[in-house]
Amino acid sequence: MKKRAVVVLSGGLDSTTCMGLAQEAGYALLPLTFAYGQRHGREVAQARKVARHYGVEHQVVDIGFFGQIGGSALTDTAIPVPDSGQEEGIPSTYVPARNLIFLSLAAAYAETRGAEVIYIGVSAVDFSGYPDCRPAFIESMEETINRATRAGHTGTRLRIEAPLVHLSKADTIREGLRLQVPYHLTTSCYRGEELACGRCDSCRLRLKGFADAGAEDPIPYRERV
Amino acid sequence: MKKRAVVVLSGGLDSTTCMGLAQEAGYALLPLTFAYGQRHGREVAQARKVARHYGVEHQVVDIGFFGQIGGSALTDTAIPVPDSGQEEGIPSTYVPARNLIFLSLAAAYAETRGAEVIYIGVSAVDFSGYPDCRPAFIESMEETINRATRAGHTGTRLRIEAPLVHLSKADTIREGLRLQVPYHLTTSCYRGEELACGRCDSCRLRLKGFADAGAEDPIPYRERV
Repeated sequence: MKKRAVVVLSGGLDSTTCMGLAQEAGYALLPLTFAYGQRHGREVAQARKVARHYGVEHQVVDIGFFGQIGGSALTDTAIPVPDSGQEEGIPSTYVPARNLIFLSLAAAYAETRGAEVIYIGVSAVDFSGYPDCRPAFIESMEETINRATRAGHTGTRLRIEAPLVHLSKADTIREGLRLQVPYHLTTSCYRGEELACGRCDSCRLRLKGFADAGAEDPIPYRERV
Repeated sequence: MKKRAVVVLSGGLDSTTCMGLAQEAGYALLPLTFAYGQRHGREVAQARKVARHYGVEHQVVDIGFFGQIGGSALTDTAIPVPDSGQEEGIPSTYVPARNLIFLSLAAAYAETRGAEVIYIGVSAVDFSGYPDCRPAFIESMEETINRATRAGHTGTRLRIEAPLVHLSKADTIREGLRLQVPYHLTTSCYRGEELACGRCDSCRLRLKGFADAGAEDPIPYRERV
């Protein structure tokens, strides 16, 4: 039987690149998407398209919790989405403990489905302000997961692969283009409207990444600043 | 302002004892309950009563995820609830990565509400078969949480208190009785019917705990074996 990988798939550029990398590494793909009332709810629809592109089963998990606790510009509509370029310190778009929660749920799914690895598309380069995108967190999380689960107590270790953690956006895009990842199906905009806004930090980062990689972003934008 | 503690409150005996211990330690209580389609869904109603008893705000979080992934006698109705006393190894009632998920969500809530500690009523004594009830997991989780969150990066550490981790059920009950914890509002039965069954492993453990503590369990049972 082919070895299995759970891929945390947001429908964005990074997680879609992880689909390509996990496939290249020989894994059967088990993409897992979290619906959590984020402004970029549109990402869930994009994730479905990406999963369909790879022809694999797709698990969407509804976690309304973030909306209830608030505290981030991405889940709390009272906090404005920043347009002003990268902020100092931890950005207002930081969702409390997001990757901690995503990886915990992914670990439960991996254990139930017999997957041996979880792919997550975090990068410590472009969003260094998010504490849960750093290698120190990923390493600690892998250890904690193995202490928490049946797998860790039967000699099988569950691994976390964060293949983009040291890559810039441009390097990620180069990898994705090499693997013919379906970037035309992805979105990155924080606003989650029909057309990507081209103004929010996430759109800016994506557009700059394509420019730096010397490639054309295949999705349309409302404007490009 | 009074310091705040998030208490993971299932409506069972152990977590309710944690309410008493956190109150005694001087914290303002922020009980947090997870509704996850478990057979003991009745526990959520009990948790509400316990929170009301303490006169505090109560957050119930709906996480249907466990039902979707299955793999445990507590969430998957195809797996029978064991009546035969303690099993060897990891029990069939183990829910994949449950405390990993609960503590991740509790960390997000604690961060948003400015709490400095999370209380969780795990015990490594009576359910030593559950890997996520052991001190080695709790310690690793605390470290991971602090690497994941804003709190951990601003010099404030979020702590996990597991005050029952080395206590037997009888010792827990002695603590609870000393603190006048409302055990009459709690339930422990895995079956979640109107009357506690008195037969499942959880009922047996509770009844034995009260007997060993030389006290009377204030809740009614269908039968006592």
